[in-house]
Amino acid sequence: MVRAKRTGRRTGNPDTRSEILGAARRLFADEGFESVSMRRIAGEAGVDPSLIHHYFGSKDELFMAAIEIPFDPAPEVAAVLRDGEVADAGERLMHAFVTIWEGPHHEKLLAVVRTSLSKPAMSFVLKQLFEHRIVKAIEATLGDKVDRIPVRAPFIASQVFGLVVARYILKLEPLASLGPDQLAATIGPTIDRYLTMPVEHLES
Amino acid sequence: MVRAKRTGRRTGNPDTRSEILGAARRLFADEGFESVSMRRIAGEAGVDPSLIHHYFGSKDELFMAAIEIPFDPAPEVAAVLRDGEVADAGERLMHAFVTIWEGPHHEKLLAVVRTSLSKPAMSFVLKQLFEHRIVKAIEATLGDKVDRIPVRAPFIASQVFGLVVARYILKLEPLASLGPDQLAATIGPTIDRYLTMPVEHLES
Repeated sequence: MVRAKRTGRRTGNPDTRSEILGAARRLFADEGFESVSMRRIAGEAGVDPSLIHHYFGSKDELFMAAIEIPFDPAPEVAAVLRDGEVADAGERLMHAFVTIWEGPHHEKLLAVVRTSLSKPAMSFVLKQLFEHRIVKAIEATLGDKVDRIPVRAPFIASQVFGLVVARYILKLEPLASLGPDQLAATIGPTIDRYLTMPVEHLES
Repeated sequence: MVRAKRTGRRTGNPDTRSEILGAARRLFADEGFESVSMRRIAGEAGVDPSLIHHYFGSKDELFMAAIEIPFDPAPEVAAVLRDGEVADAGERLMHAFVTIWEGPHHEKLLAVVRTSLSKPAMSFVLKQLFEHRIVKAIEATLGDKVDRIPVRAPFIASQVFGLVVARYILKLEPLASLGPDQLAATIGPTIDRYLTMPVEHLES
């Protein structure tokens, strides 16, 4: 019945874009980014697959739009990690992270995190963003210098998410008032340790 | 007007308890735990101060009831830190934390965290719980061996909150499946570093 109703909006309708986004959100949340095809999303939305390409370009871009993140963090992570030594990768990552978080997208990013942490369906989407975009960006840039990145990355994420909670949500002092340099110097080494500690025995 | 309406419920009314809790929640959120007196809460609730003692005992107990935490974490933290060396305090803390989180209060604790991270008024309450109960418990047990605990504690909190997010909310693998011993061995040293790193220059 719902499908029949949707068929009336196949082309040109201003609702088409949001119809596609809704279908993508449902399918990504239920089945995961990797296993959902563009064709499948088109079917669920009741539109021609070419319309998805028209509105969103790639599957990656559709994913970013579906989860309402203001920008794709993967290229930023890659850029920070590509140039420089592994030894201080944590400091550089932390410095860049804080700078981005305190830039023009701050309110929007905070809203995404609040929603992701309180609603299980959105938590799943944030998990996918991490696994599909961030881990791959780290692998692409550090993969030849650091082993077992998928095992290490969740530890890094735990410290980075925790910084978001402590600094931007709970505003614990003095952590909430420190500058990017101080945060990079104090929290960066934690990330460096997660990049270098033995993790062979932790593989599932 | 509201006050006048409440006066009719001074004693014996089954609503008295929730009336007191509501007043306490509002005042703790608006003004903070330290600055709100029991007398003030009684006034806001329109009840005699002796009734608060009757229902809740101490101000600490009223606070714990108001924020709907299933138990007070401060004695647990103190017990873990009291016996043993500072050198592996992080490992012991992490082991105890994971064990408590995975005990009978798991669902309730997760609900408290989800609410605290998504609603600003509840974030403020979680912040107070941390500053009023946890930091004081750490100071009472490690204060003679570790300097500047209020500066260090938010860093520890950032890693602990981040573990909650990565393991219990986002369920990032393999972090979500590791046992308490593995988590203590991998994340404990992060907490140990925050307890021992120089922080003089970070004081506000």
